[in-house]
Amino acid sequence: MKKRIKKSIAIDMDETVADMLSRQLQWYERTFSVKLERADLYGKKIYDVVPKAHLVEVKAFPDHPDFFKDLPVIDGAVEAIKTLSSNYEVFFVSAAMEHPNSFTAKYQWLKQNFPFVSDMNYIFCGFKGMLNCDYLIDDSSRHLDVFEGQGLLFDAMHNKHQKGYERMCSWQEVVCYLS
Amino acid sequence: MKKRIKKSIAIDMDETVADMLSRQLQWYERTFSVKLERADLYGKKIYDVVPKAHLVEVKAFPDHPDFFKDLPVIDGAVEAIKTLSSNYEVFFVSAAMEHPNSFTAKYQWLKQNFPFVSDMNYIFCGFKGMLNCDYLIDDSSRHLDVFEGQGLLFDAMHNKHQKGYERMCSWQEVVCYLS
Repeated sequence: MKKRIKKSIAIDMDETVADMLSRQLQWYERTFSVKLERADLYGKKIYDVVPKAHLVEVKAFPDHPDFFKDLPVIDGAVEAIKTLSSNYEVFFVSAAMEHPNSFTAKYQWLKQNFPFVSDMNYIFCGFKGMLNCDYLIDDSSRHLDVFEGQGLLFDAMHNKHQKGYERMCSWQEVVCYLS
Repeated sequence: MKKRIKKSIAIDMDETVADMLSRQLQWYERTFSVKLERADLYGKKIYDVVPKAHLVEVKAFPDHPDFFKDLPVIDGAVEAIKTLSSNYEVFFVSAAMEHPNSFTAKYQWLKQNFPFVSDMNYIFCGFKGMLNCDYLIDDSSRHLDVFEGQGLLFDAMHNKHQKGYERMCSWQEVVCYLS
Protein backbone atom coordinates (compact mmCIF):
# COMPACT_ATOMS: atom_id res chain seq x y z
CA MET A 1 0.00 0.00 0.00
CA LYS A 2 1.58 3.23 -1.23
CA LYS A 3 0.88 6.46 0.62
CA ARG A 4 0.43 9.58 -1.42
CA ILE A 5 2.71 12.50 -0.64
CA LYS A 6 0.74 15.50 -1.91
CA LYS A 7 -2.67 16.38 -0.52
CA SER A 8 -5.42 15.79 -3.04
CA ILE A 9 -8.27 17.87 -4.39
CA ALA A 10 -11.26 16.45 -6.22
CA ILE A 11 -12.83 19.07 -8.48
CA ASP A 12 -16.34 18.78 -9.82
CA MET A 13 -16.93 19.62 -13.48
CA ASP A 14 -20.43 20.99 -14.18
CA GLU A 15 -20.88 24.52 -12.79
CA THR A 16 -17.54 24.30 -10.97
CA VAL A 17 -15.16 24.41 -13.93
CA ALA A 18 -17.61 24.09 -16.86
CA ASP A 19 -20.08 26.93 -17.37
CA MET A 20 -23.09 24.69 -18.01
CA LEU A 21 -25.60 27.41 -17.17
CA SER A 22 -24.55 29.65 -20.08
CA ARG A 23 -25.11 26.82 -22.52
CA GLN A 24 -28.43 25.84 -20.89
CA LEU A 25 -29.73 29.42 -21.20
CA GLN A 26 -28.47 29.67 -24.76
CA TRP A 27 -30.08 26.40 -25.85
CA TYR A 28 -33.26 27.17 -23.94
CA GLU A 29 -33.67 30.42 -25.87
CA ARG A 30 -32.80 28.71 -29.16
CA THR A 31 -35.30 25.88 -28.53
CA PHE A 32 -38.25 27.69 -26.96
CA SER A 33 -37.68 31.32 -28.05
CA VAL A 34 -37.77 32.44 -24.42
CA LYS A 35 -34.89 34.39 -22.99
CA LEU A 36 -34.08 33.59 -19.35
CA GLU A 37 -31.60 35.78 -17.50
CA ARG A 38 -29.08 34.47 -14.99
CA ALA A 39 -30.76 36.69 -12.40
CA ASP A 40 -34.01 34.69 -12.84
CA LEU A 41 -32.13 31.71 -11.46
CA TYR A 42 -31.02 33.13 -8.13
CA GLY A 43 -31.35 30.22 -5.69
CA LYS A 44 -32.88 27.99 -8.36
CA LYS A 45 -31.95 25.47 -11.00
CA ILE A 46 -33.17 25.96 -14.54
CA TYR A 47 -35.42 22.93 -13.97
CA ASP A 48 -37.22 24.87 -11.22
CA VAL A 49 -38.17 27.80 -13.45
CA VAL A 50 -39.03 26.40 -16.88
CA PRO A 51 -42.60 25.21 -17.57
CA LYS A 52 -43.21 21.53 -16.94
CA ALA A 53 -43.83 21.00 -20.64
CA HIS A 54 -40.21 21.96 -21.41
CA LEU A 55 -38.61 19.91 -18.66
CA VAL A 56 -37.89 16.66 -20.49
CA GLU A 57 -36.20 18.50 -23.33
CA VAL A 58 -34.16 20.78 -21.04
CA LYS A 59 -32.99 17.83 -18.95
CA ALA A 60 -31.81 16.09 -22.12
CA PHE A 61 -29.62 19.03 -23.27
CA PRO A 62 -26.42 17.58 -21.73
CA ASP A 63 -26.99 14.27 -23.56
CA HIS A 64 -26.52 15.99 -26.90
CA PRO A 65 -23.03 15.41 -28.37
CA ASP A 66 -22.63 19.16 -29.03
CA PHE A 67 -23.52 20.33 -25.52
CA PHE A 68 -19.90 20.41 -24.33
CA LYS A 69 -18.52 21.71 -27.63
CA ASP A 70 -16.80 25.05 -26.95
CA LEU A 71 -18.50 25.21 -23.56
CA PRO A 72 -16.81 28.05 -21.68
CA VAL A 73 -14.61 27.43 -18.66
CA ILE A 74 -15.66 29.14 -15.42
CA ASP A 75 -13.69 32.35 -15.00
CA GLY A 76 -10.23 31.85 -13.51
CA ALA A 77 -10.44 28.05 -13.26
CA VAL A 78 -7.58 27.24 -15.65
CA GLU A 79 -5.05 29.53 -13.96
CA ALA A 80 -6.18 28.52 -10.46
CA ILE A 81 -6.00 24.77 -11.13
CA LYS A 82 -2.61 25.17 -12.79
CA THR A 83 -1.40 26.90 -9.62
CA LEU A 84 -2.98 24.31 -7.30
CA SER A 85 -1.43 21.46 -9.34
CA SER A 86 2.04 22.30 -8.13
CA ASN A 87 1.14 21.62 -4.50
CA TYR A 88 -1.81 19.25 -4.73
CA GLU A 89 -2.76 16.14 -6.64
CA VAL A 90 -5.74 17.31 -8.69
CA PHE A 91 -8.62 15.07 -9.81
CA PHE A 92 -11.64 15.98 -11.91
CA VAL A 93 -14.72 14.20 -10.63
CA SER A 94 -17.94 14.32 -12.57
CA ALA A 95 -21.25 12.71 -11.68
CA ALA A 96 -21.34 11.62 -15.30
CA MET A 97 -23.56 8.58 -14.68
CA GLU A 98 -26.54 10.94 -14.78
CA HIS A 99 -25.80 11.50 -18.47
CA PRO A 100 -24.12 8.32 -19.75
CA ASN A 101 -24.12 9.64 -23.32
CA SER A 102 -21.91 12.54 -22.28
CA PHE A 103 -18.84 10.53 -21.18
CA THR A 104 -16.80 11.06 -24.32
CA ALA A 105 -17.79 14.73 -24.69
CA LYS A 106 -16.84 15.41 -21.06
CA TYR A 107 -13.56 13.57 -21.46
CA GLN A 108 -12.68 15.60 -24.57
CA TRP A 109 -13.68 18.90 -22.92
CA LEU A 110 -11.39 18.23 -19.96
CA LYS A 111 -8.49 17.17 -22.20
CA GLN A 112 -8.89 20.32 -24.26
CA ASN A 113 -9.23 22.82 -21.43
CA PHE A 114 -6.97 21.30 -18.77
CA PRO A 115 -4.20 19.58 -20.74
CA PHE A 116 -1.90 19.83 -17.71
CA VAL A 117 -4.04 17.39 -15.66
CA SER A 118 -3.53 13.74 -16.65
CA ASP A 119 -6.62 11.90 -17.82
CA MET A 120 -5.62 9.20 -15.34
CA ASN A 121 -6.95 11.73 -12.78
CA TYR A 122 -10.45 11.94 -14.26
CA ILE A 123 -13.22 10.18 -12.35
CA PHE A 124 -16.70 9.66 -13.79
CA CYS A 125 -19.02 8.39 -11.11
CA GLY A 126 -22.44 8.73 -9.55
CA PHE A 127 -21.88 8.80 -5.80
CA LYS A 128 -18.99 10.99 -4.58
CA GLY A 129 -18.91 9.54 -1.07
CA MET A 130 -16.35 6.96 -2.16
CA LEU A 131 -13.65 9.55 -2.92
CA ASN A 132 -10.54 9.31 -0.83
CA CYS A 133 -9.35 12.89 -1.32
CA ASP A 134 -8.57 15.68 1.12
CA TYR A 135 -10.83 18.27 -0.51
CA LEU A 136 -13.87 18.25 -2.77
CA ILE A 137 -14.81 21.46 -4.58
CA ASP A 138 -18.37 21.17 -5.83
CA ASP A 139 -21.41 23.37 -6.49
CA SER A 140 -23.80 20.61 -5.32
CA SER A 141 -24.21 20.36 -1.59
CA ARG A 142 -25.57 16.79 -1.90
CA HIS A 143 -22.11 15.65 -3.01
CA LEU A 144 -20.41 17.52 -0.16
CA ASP A 145 -22.87 15.90 2.27
CA VAL A 146 -21.56 12.40 1.51
CA PHE A 147 -17.88 13.31 1.10
CA GLU A 148 -15.66 12.34 4.03
CA GLY A 149 -12.90 14.95 3.50
CA GLN A 150 -13.34 18.71 3.59
CA GLY A 151 -15.97 20.01 1.22
CA LEU A 152 -15.86 23.45 -0.39
CA LEU A 153 -19.08 24.73 -1.96
CA PHE A 154 -18.35 26.44 -5.24
CA ASP A 155 -20.68 29.39 -5.56
CA ALA A 156 -23.36 28.99 -8.24
CA MET A 157 -26.69 30.66 -8.94
CA HIS A 158 -28.66 27.60 -7.79
CA ASN A 159 -26.90 27.30 -4.40
CA LYS A 160 -27.11 30.96 -3.29
CA HIS A 161 -29.43 30.18 -0.37
CA GLN A 162 -27.45 27.22 0.98
CA LYS A 163 -25.89 27.75 4.38
CA GLY A 164 -23.52 25.71 6.49
CA TYR A 165 -20.86 25.12 3.83
CA GLU A 166 -17.45 26.70 3.25
CA ARG A 167 -18.40 28.80 0.22
CA MET A 168 -15.85 29.67 -2.46
CA CYS A 169 -17.05 32.67 -4.46
CA SER A 170 -14.41 32.41 -7.18
CA TRP A 171 -11.41 30.37 -8.29
CA GLN A 172 -9.20 33.16 -6.95
CA GLU A 173 -10.71 32.52 -3.52
CA VAL A 174 -10.01 28.78 -3.84
CA VAL A 175 -6.32 29.46 -4.52
CA CYS A 176 -6.17 31.89 -1.61
CA TYR A 177 -7.91 29.40 0.73
CA LEU A 178 -5.68 26.46 -0.21
CA SER A 179 -2.36 28.32 -0.28
CA MET B 1 -20.78 14.48 6.53
CA LYS B 2 -22.79 11.29 6.33
CA LYS B 3 -21.17 8.04 7.42
CA ARG B 4 -21.97 4.95 5.44
CA ILE B 5 -23.42 2.03 7.34
CA LYS B 6 -22.52 -0.94 5.16
CA LYS B 7 -18.91 -1.80 4.38
CA SER B 8 -18.05 -1.17 0.75
CA ILE B 9 -16.46 -3.24 -2.00
CA ALA B 10 -15.00 -1.79 -5.18
CA ILE B 11 -15.00 -4.38 -7.95
CA ASP B 12 -12.85 -4.04 -11.03
CA MET B 13 -14.41 -4.84 -14.40
CA ASP B 14 -11.91 -6.19 -16.96
CA GLU B 15 -10.79 -9.74 -16.10
CA THR B 16 -12.52 -9.55 -12.71
CA VAL B 17 -16.15 -9.64 -13.83
CA ALA B 18 -15.77 -9.29 -17.63
CA ASP B 19 -14.02 -12.10 -19.46
CA MET B 20 -11.88 -9.84 -21.67
CA LEU B 21 -9.36 -12.56 -22.40
CA SER B 22 -11.86 -14.78 -24.24
CA ARG B 23 -12.74 -11.91 -26.54
CA GLN B 24 -9.09 -10.96 -27.06
CA LEU B 25 -8.21 -14.53 -28.07
CA GLN B 26 -11.26 -14.74 -30.33
CA TRP B 27 -10.52 -11.44 -32.09
CA TYR B 28 -6.82 -12.24 -32.31
CA GLU B 29 -7.57 -15.45 -34.16
CA ARG B 30 -10.12 -13.71 -36.38
CA THR B 31 -7.70 -10.87 -37.24
CA PHE B 32 -4.39 -12.69 -37.62
CA SER B 33 -5.49 -16.31 -38.22
CA VAL B 34 -3.37 -17.47 -35.30
CA LYS B 35 -4.95 -19.46 -32.50
CA LEU B 36 -3.57 -18.71 -29.04
CA GLU B 37 -4.60 -20.93 -26.15
CA ARG B 38 -5.28 -19.66 -22.63
CA ALA B 39 -2.43 -21.91 -21.45
CA ASP B 40 0.01 -19.90 -23.63
CA LEU B 41 -0.76 -16.92 -21.40
CA TYR B 42 0.19 -18.39 -18.04
CA GLY B 43 1.84 -15.52 -16.17
CA LYS B 44 1.63 -13.24 -19.22
CA LYS B 45 -0.61 -10.70 -20.86
CA ILE B 46 -1.60 -11.15 -24.48
CA TYR B 47 0.60 -8.09 -25.22
CA ASP B 48 3.62 -10.08 -23.99
CA VAL B 49 3.12 -12.98 -26.39
CA VAL B 50 1.93 -11.53 -29.71
CA PRO B 51 4.51 -10.35 -32.25
CA LYS B 52 5.40 -6.65 -32.06
CA ALA B 53 3.82 -6.06 -35.45
CA HIS B 54 0.38 -7.03 -34.05
CA LEU B 55 0.61 -5.02 -30.87
CA VAL B 56 -1.00 -1.75 -31.94
CA GLU B 57 -4.00 -3.57 -33.35
CA VAL B 58 -4.40 -5.88 -30.35
CA LYS B 59 -4.20 -2.96 -27.92
CA ALA B 60 -6.94 -1.19 -29.86
CA PHE B 61 -9.42 -4.11 -29.62
CA PRO B 62 -11.21 -2.67 -26.54
CA ASP B 63 -11.75 0.66 -28.33
CA HIS B 64 -14.01 -1.04 -30.86
CA PRO B 65 -17.72 -0.46 -30.09
CA ASP B 66 -18.45 -4.19 -30.45
CA PHE B 67 -15.73 -5.40 -28.07
CA PHE B 68 -18.06 -5.51 -25.05
CA LYS B 69 -21.06 -6.78 -27.02
CA ASP B 70 -22.11 -10.13 -25.53
CA LEU B 71 -18.79 -10.31 -23.68
CA PRO B 72 -19.16 -13.18 -21.20
CA VAL B 73 -19.28 -12.62 -17.45
CA ILE B 74 -16.60 -14.36 -15.39
CA ASP B 75 -18.01 -17.58 -13.97
CA GLY B 76 -20.02 -17.09 -10.78
CA ALA B 77 -19.71 -13.30 -10.67
CA VAL B 78 -23.41 -12.48 -11.01
CA GLU B 79 -24.56 -14.80 -8.22
CA ALA B 80 -21.65 -13.81 -5.96
CA ILE B 81 -22.17 -10.06 -6.36
CA LYS B 82 -25.90 -10.46 -5.83
CA THR B 83 -25.12 -12.24 -2.55
CA LEU B 84 -22.51 -9.66 -1.49
CA SER B 85 -24.91 -6.79 -2.28
CA SER B 86 -27.10 -7.66 0.66
CA ASN B 87 -24.33 -7.02 3.17
CA TYR B 88 -22.00 -4.63 1.34
CA GLU B 89 -22.29 -1.50 -0.75
CA VAL B 90 -20.97 -2.63 -4.12
CA PHE B 91 -19.21 -0.36 -6.64
CA PHE B 92 -17.89 -1.25 -10.07
CA VAL B 93 -14.62 0.53 -10.74
CA SER B 94 -13.04 0.43 -14.15
CA ALA B 95 -9.80 2.06 -15.26
CA ALA B 96 -11.76 3.18 -18.30
CA MET B 97 -9.58 6.23 -19.00
CA GLU B 98 -7.17 3.89 -20.79
CA HIS B 99 -9.87 3.36 -23.43
CA PRO B 100 -11.98 6.54 -23.51
CA ASN B 101 -13.98 5.25 -26.47
CA SER B 102 -15.21 2.35 -24.39
CA PHE B 103 -17.14 4.34 -21.74
CA THR B 104 -20.58 3.83 -23.20
CA ALA B 105 -19.99 0.18 -24.09
CA LYS B 106 -18.74 -0.55 -20.57
CA TYR B 107 -21.67 1.29 -19.04
CA GLN B 108 -24.14 -0.73 -21.13
CA TRP B 109 -22.40 -4.02 -20.37
CA LEU B 110 -22.63 -3.40 -16.62
CA LYS B 111 -26.29 -2.32 -16.85
CA GLN B 112 -27.14 -5.45 -18.81
CA ASN B 113 -25.27 -7.99 -16.69
CA PHE B 114 -25.65 -6.50 -13.19
CA PRO B 115 -29.04 -4.76 -13.25
CA PHE B 116 -29.23 -5.06 -9.45
CA VAL B 117 -26.29 -2.64 -8.93
CA SER B 118 -27.27 1.02 -9.42
CA ASP B 119 -25.36 2.90 -12.11
CA MET B 120 -24.78 5.55 -9.45
CA ASN B 121 -22.25 3.00 -8.12
CA TYR B 122 -20.18 2.82 -11.32
CA ILE B 123 -16.82 4.56 -11.28
CA PHE B 124 -14.74 5.11 -14.42
CA CYS B 125 -11.31 6.36 -13.48
CA GLY B 126 -7.60 6.03 -14.12
CA PHE B 127 -5.97 5.90 -10.71
CA LYS B 128 -7.67 3.69 -8.10
CA GLY B 129 -5.76 5.12 -5.14
CA MET B 130 -8.49 7.68 -4.59
CA LEU B 131 -11.15 5.09 -3.72
CA ASN B 132 -12.54 5.29 -0.22
CA CYS B 133 -13.82 1.71 0.00
CA ASP B 134 -13.11 -1.10 2.42
CA TYR B 135 -12.16 -3.67 -0.23
CA LEU B 136 -10.92 -3.62 -3.80
CA ILE B 137 -11.17 -6.80 -5.86
CA ASP B 138 -8.92 -6.48 -8.91
CA ASP B 139 -6.80 -8.68 -11.17
CA SER B 140 -4.16 -5.92 -11.53
CA SER B 141 -1.72 -5.70 -8.65
CA ARG B 142 -0.76 -2.13 -9.63
CA HIS B 143 -4.24 -0.99 -8.60
CA LEU B 144 -4.05 -2.91 -5.32
CA ASP B 145 -0.65 -1.30 -4.67
CA VAL B 146 -2.13 2.22 -4.52
CA PHE B 147 -5.41 1.30 -2.79
CA GLU B 148 -5.60 2.22 0.88
CA GLY B 149 -8.17 -0.37 1.97
CA GLN B 150 -7.79 -4.14 1.75
CA GLY B 151 -6.95 -5.42 -1.71
CA LEU B 152 -7.95 -8.84 -3.01
CA LEU B 153 -6.18 -10.09 -6.12
CA PHE B 154 -8.64 -11.76 -8.45
CA ASP B 155 -6.90 -14.72 -10.07
CA ALA B 156 -6.19 -14.27 -13.78
CA MET B 157 -3.84 -15.91 -16.26
CA HIS B 158 -1.55 -12.86 -16.36
CA ASN B 159 -1.10 -12.61 -12.56
CA LYS B 160 -0.32 -16.30 -11.82
CA HIS B 161 3.24 -15.53 -10.70
CA GLN B 162 2.38 -12.59 -8.43
CA LYS B 163 2.99 -13.17 -4.75
CA GLY B 164 2.22 -11.18 -1.64
CA TYR B 165 -1.46 -10.54 -2.34
CA GLU B 166 -4.60 -12.13 -0.93
CA ARG B 167 -5.53 -14.18 -3.99
CA MET B 168 -9.15 -15.04 -4.78
CA CYS B 169 -9.30 -18.00 -7.15
CA SER B 170 -13.01 -17.73 -7.91
CA TRP B 171 -16.10 -15.68 -7.13
CA GLN B 172 -17.19 -18.48 -4.82
CA GLU B 173 -14.01 -17.88 -2.81
CA VAL B 174 -14.76 -14.14 -2.63
CA VAL B 175 -18.19 -14.83 -1.13
CA CYS B 176 -16.69 -17.29 1.34
CA TYR B 177 -13.93 -14.83 2.32
CA LEU B 178 -16.29 -11.89 2.83
CA SER B 179 -19.08 -13.74 4.62
